[in-house]
Amino acid sequence: MIKVGIVGATGYTGRELLRLLRQHPEVESLAILSARTGDKSETLPPPLGDTVHPFELDRLSGCAAVFLCTPHHMASQLVPQLLDRGITAIDLSADFRLKSATVYRQAYGVDHASPELLARAVYGLTEFAREELPGARLVANPGCYPTSILLALKPLLNTRALDRSFPIVCDSKSGVSGAGKQPTETTHFGNVHENFKAYGVGSHRHLPEIRQESGVSDLVFTPHLLPVFRGILSTLYVRPAAGHSAASLRTILAERYAREPFVQVCPEGQFPETGHVLLTNRCALGVGACGDLVILVSAIDNLVKGASGQAVQNLNAVFGFPEVAGLR
Amino acid sequence: MIKVGIVGATGYTGRELLRLLRQHPEVESLAILSARTGDKSETLPPPLGDTVHPFELDRLSGCAAVFLCTPHHMASQLVPQLLDRGITAIDLSADFRLKSATVYRQAYGVDHASPELLARAVYGLTEFAREELPGARLVANPGCYPTSILLALKPLLNTRALDRSFPIVCDSKSGVSGAGKQPTETTHFGNVHENFKAYGVGSHRHLPEIRQESGVSDLVFTPHLLPVFRGILSTLYVRPAAGHSAASLRTILAERYAREPFVQVCPEGQFPETGHVLLTNRCALGVGACGDLVILVSAIDNLVKGASGQAVQNLNAVFGFPEVAGLR
Amino acid sequence: MIKVGIVGATGYTGRELLRLLRQHPEVESLAILSARTGDKSETLPPPLGDTVHPFELDRLSGCAAVFLCTPHHMASQLVPQLLDRGITAIDLSADFRLKSATVYRQAYGVDHASPELLARAVYGLTEFAREELPGARLVANPGCYPTSILLALKPLLNTRALDRSFPIVCDSKSGVSGAGKQPTETTHFGNVHENFKAYGVGSHRHLPEIRQESGVSDLVFTPHLLPVFRGILSTLYVRPAAGHSAASLRTILAERYAREPFVQVCPEGQFPETGHVLLTNRCALGVGACGDLVILVSAIDNLVKGASGQAVQNLNAVFGFPEVAGLR
Amino acid sequence: MIKVGIVGATGYTGRELLRLLRQHPEVESLAILSARTGDKSETLPPPLGDTVHPFELDRLSGCAAVFLCTPHHMASQLVPQLLDRGITAIDLSADFRLKSATVYRQAYGVDHASPELLARAVYGLTEFAREELPGARLVANPGCYPTSILLALKPLLNTRALDRSFPIVCDSKSGVSGAGKQPTETTHFGNVHENFKAYGVGSHRHLPEIRQESGVSDLVFTPHLLPVFRGILSTLYVRPAAGHSAASLRTILAERYAREPFVQVCPEGQFPETGHVLLTNRCALGVGACGDLVILVSAIDNLVKGASGQAVQNLNAVFGFPEVAGLR
Repeated sequence: MIKVGIVGATGYTGRELLRLLRQHPEVESLAILSARTGDKSETLPPPLGDTVHPFELDRLSGCAAVFLCTPHHMASQLVPQLLDRGITAIDLSADFRLKSATVYRQAYGVDHASPELLARAVYGLTEFAREELPGARLVANPGCYPTSILLALKPLLNTRALDRSFPIVCDSKSGVSGAGKQPTETTHFGNVHENFKAYGVGSHRHLPEIRQESGVSDLVFTPHLLPVFRGILSTLYVRPAAGHSAASLRTILAERYAREPFVQVCPEGQFPETGHVLLTNRCALGVGACGDLVILVSAIDNLVKGASGQAVQNLNAVFGFPEVAGLR
Repeated sequence: MIKVGIVGATGYTGRELLRLLRQHPEVESLAILSARTGDKSETLPPPLGDTVHPFELDRLSGCAAVFLCTPHHMASQLVPQLLDRGITAIDLSADFRLKSATVYRQAYGVDHASPELLARAVYGLTEFAREELPGARLVANPGCYPTSILLALKPLLNTRALDRSFPIVCDSKSGVSGAGKQPTETTHFGNVHENFKAYGVGSHRHLPEIRQESGVSDLVFTPHLLPVFRGILSTLYVRPAAGHSAASLRTILAERYAREPFVQVCPEGQFPETGHVLLTNRCALGVGACGDLVILVSAIDNLVKGASGQAVQNLNAVFGFPEVAGLR
Repeated sequence: MIKVGIVGATGYTGRELLRLLRQHPEVESLAILSARTGDKSETLPPPLGDTVHPFELDRLSGCAAVFLCTPHHMASQLVPQLLDRGITAIDLSADFRLKSATVYRQAYGVDHASPELLARAVYGLTEFAREELPGARLVANPGCYPTSILLALKPLLNTRALDRSFPIVCDSKSGVSGAGKQPTETTHFGNVHENFKAYGVGSHRHLPEIRQESGVSDLVFTPHLLPVFRGILSTLYVRPAAGHSAASLRTILAERYAREPFVQVCPEGQFPETGHVLLTNRCALGVGACGDLVILVSAIDNLVKGASGQAVQNLNAVFGFPEVAGLR
Repeated sequence: MIKVGIVGATGYTGRELLRLLRQHPEVESLAILSARTGDKSETLPPPLGDTVHPFELDRLSGCAAVFLCTPHHMASQLVPQLLDRGITAIDLSADFRLKSATVYRQAYGVDHASPELLARAVYGLTEFAREELPGARLVANPGCYPTSILLALKPLLNTRALDRSFPIVCDSKSGVSGAGKQPTETTHFGNVHENFKAYGVGSHRHLPEIRQESGVSDLVFTPHLLPVFRGILSTLYVRPAAGHSAASLRTILAERYAREPFVQVCPEGQFPETGHVLLTNRCALGVGACGDLVILVSAIDNLVKGASGQAVQNLNAVFGFPEVAGLR
């Protein structure tokens, strides 16, 4: 039984963590903090109802791990202080996902606050980081889009089942919660409801992360905004390597994930829907074909497997808890 | 001033035609029929309120043109009877879009009822059929997905601006009205709301139509179902030919459509949203880049430019009316 | 043919006015202004695309009428300047709806800027203001909720068909566009979608307006926020006077509105839906019974009959144009 | 630890029961049956994935309790067979809610199949049935609308805090899941999305149930259909008895529910939203005033506290389990 902290508990990923951690059998107490210092506490709306305290480092004393649900550039300032106190940091922001401080600056427009720590961070796509996670001190929780894409691609890349002369096209669609709880033009009901659009075409910050973790430098990625609150569906277009087909790619995925509790591969002819994974830590994958391309469809709940659920999964892996603890 | 008929006026495309034709300056009267014979008339829900009469051929006498909003396989049975009476048929079903009766049977699972007429049908993607439409007797109104895709592709294919060794990937997303007004599992609110999915992966009936009209036999197409009522957004991934770039492709599109009233090309950095074209006959196009691919985004209202609006545009072209009549 | 101005054209009601006035047969030119002074023009999003100029009084010269789509307290400062120049003001804000400056201050928390003009303003519930509107110089366009409620109540009150010992209960539900286009917590997609709530219970600013115009001082009103963009549905509970019934109340309404182009009464057993009046200037009314109360259901599009459509209807009445001009 | 059965597991309430019972600490095994006999099993869509077997009475052997999620008139035929085998029946249909077979026939249009059992059924509004539930053999689970209304009213009626000369007005709004999973015109996305309507005005089947259980024979009730999947919000208009006010009514409710785990009363000035209770067994109540009426707002998740959650709560009460078991 451990004490854990959440910094940035008022946002969507912070609240989702709260929902999950309160029923976690190994978590006995929680420090629930805002990302801002200041003198006012805040009460979360029902059904949570928790009190969120202003940020003070001392409130985190005794924590074995702290989840950072802060804006980027803030986590990289806090992490050294946590590490100094022997606290494991699980960072849900983008600050420790990219291995290169140069790429970070290009993508996020600011110098990284702790570039010397980049090499120490474990990229927490749990299913592919099991050797590095136990005992890790700094976990970079993957982005929502990268999670949906990498879970579909990595087994196929690792087995050289794809024709890499084809650039891999990733067409992704996300619910509005990915844009955060701040009221903006983007999140105004009148601009989302009965609407659909692409955004960040060719320039989204998750693109370098996906390229880094897949190792596919010419991968193409277009995000879109869905009029739903939760859910990401990514449709990937790949060309199978010689001797491969949709069927063999599906088999590779099915075998790779056969014993994974949170990744399922649909039978032939079936494809995942975002509604099938809502409020779960599951990633559902489907495989089809059109012409000589294979089409991979991947669905996750962006706030669970795409953020807070995977963060809890990473907590479990770091501390040796059953990986499904708190996630059923 | 002409009389026109609508067969199948109770469905979504039929009602949309009614909305448009009632304010059409060249249409003086309307025959509003169901696609079914039988003895009961039906009143359309507000705000339309029109009476829809059961189908009888005699009710169409005096019509210069008839719009067929019937299920596939029915239009091909009705068209010969219309042509015999000297009535121009504008078919919104799929029956006359494919040039090959064999391909038709593969896609629609039934023998074509009038294969001898296939060669006479004008494929009514209006912007590309202006020479054939004046005086045409049989117009095959394009499918909704094909319209959104072909308007983005054809100028680029015609100018050989694309590297055809790349298969062209079309990732399309449509509102629920494309599934028709019949209550089904697919259209149940509980299966659409807060959900998103791919469907017809590799096998959608619009695929052979898109391939035929683009001339790209290895084109790939995946439709998805959006939780909106109206609108299609297609995201296309193409590789420019040597010497071409996103900028030059945008220029080709902008020049091709400079004098078109219903197709607009967004400036660099801007992309269309379905909400921008709702209830209009417009197609909005955007051009971006990612890696060495160019990304084309195309937005239409599936019930207007993707169906009934384009049908009216075709009526105008057939009869020599101003092409925007009834569509402003 | 007249020139008209819109002040506050970037908001929802301003844009809706633009949509309507551009097809108005008696409006030959438009001055399209923001409510703010300053040096930058703004382009409205598609499909409108108009340029909105910063506010300058001189841009309104030559206008016969100006629509004010400004926040409250701003209209009352502008109106005297318009009247001085002989321009008719049609105010879509709340500034001239209440007859009492004291009540105005209670409801809006600010002293009225032109209390001397309150008595001159015509309350523009068009169907009940036809004698005062022709030639009027200052029209107070009714609030959206009051429009939906008063159209149902006034004929019944005027004929003494209601038992006034019962306080009249008005339970109203509105789409999000009523909250304006400003991004706020209230309008954030995440707080509207898959949610429903009452707000302003017992204290909404439209309550004194409804009481004033109905003359029912103990009328009760609760607004709610619907997860739709447009539409208001009000459900009213009244007790019929002795000798009256649902049937007789329906007859009173049907007769009163028999020749009105924009108000329709549903037959027995049918009730209006907001979807039936969207994008129209119609108000649809239904009458039912439960126990000894009669239930009136009223549906309008809050941006059309509840705001900009009724404002155009008032323009028509002021200038003697056909009342339906621009509204079909 | 007991075995329980679900008859009608493919519908919305059946699936919700599955979701709840699978994490119930006192339920060790489940019989999951369809309401129909026949030879085909069915697999529930993800994330449930359970197999639903065709109905056979033998599959229920060993069950201590069976939940009936069947259409009305079917439960009343099954219940005697369950009771004969010593199985407790918790009926989520309407069959045992009304005490009078005559009223049942008027409301449901069919003769009751087991009128002799009506007197034995416990009306399972759990918070008000704690004395009768322990050991009960037949529980009539309340309707969704009645639950939302009665929880607000009963403490006020029981303390004579309401002026009964006023008829009590209940204006209720429900999500689409209340209409069931059958595809119909009512549940078609195109008829729900961006729409809102009243239905069953003066004639809804829950009206006699609400009147029976409140004892208020002149209570008025209008249901409406919200474009959401889950949630009911009821707005009630009552007149306080002499000496009472909104504040005193709020106090009565707050005291009555102070130790109830599933009913919360909002502080003054706050009102519940359906989004605050989604996926929980909670009922949230708010109290305000307008004129001399008091306005009660009640929010529940219609599939949880309005159906399956309350059914589990009743199971707990019948068998002496902690009332919150399986419902946290």
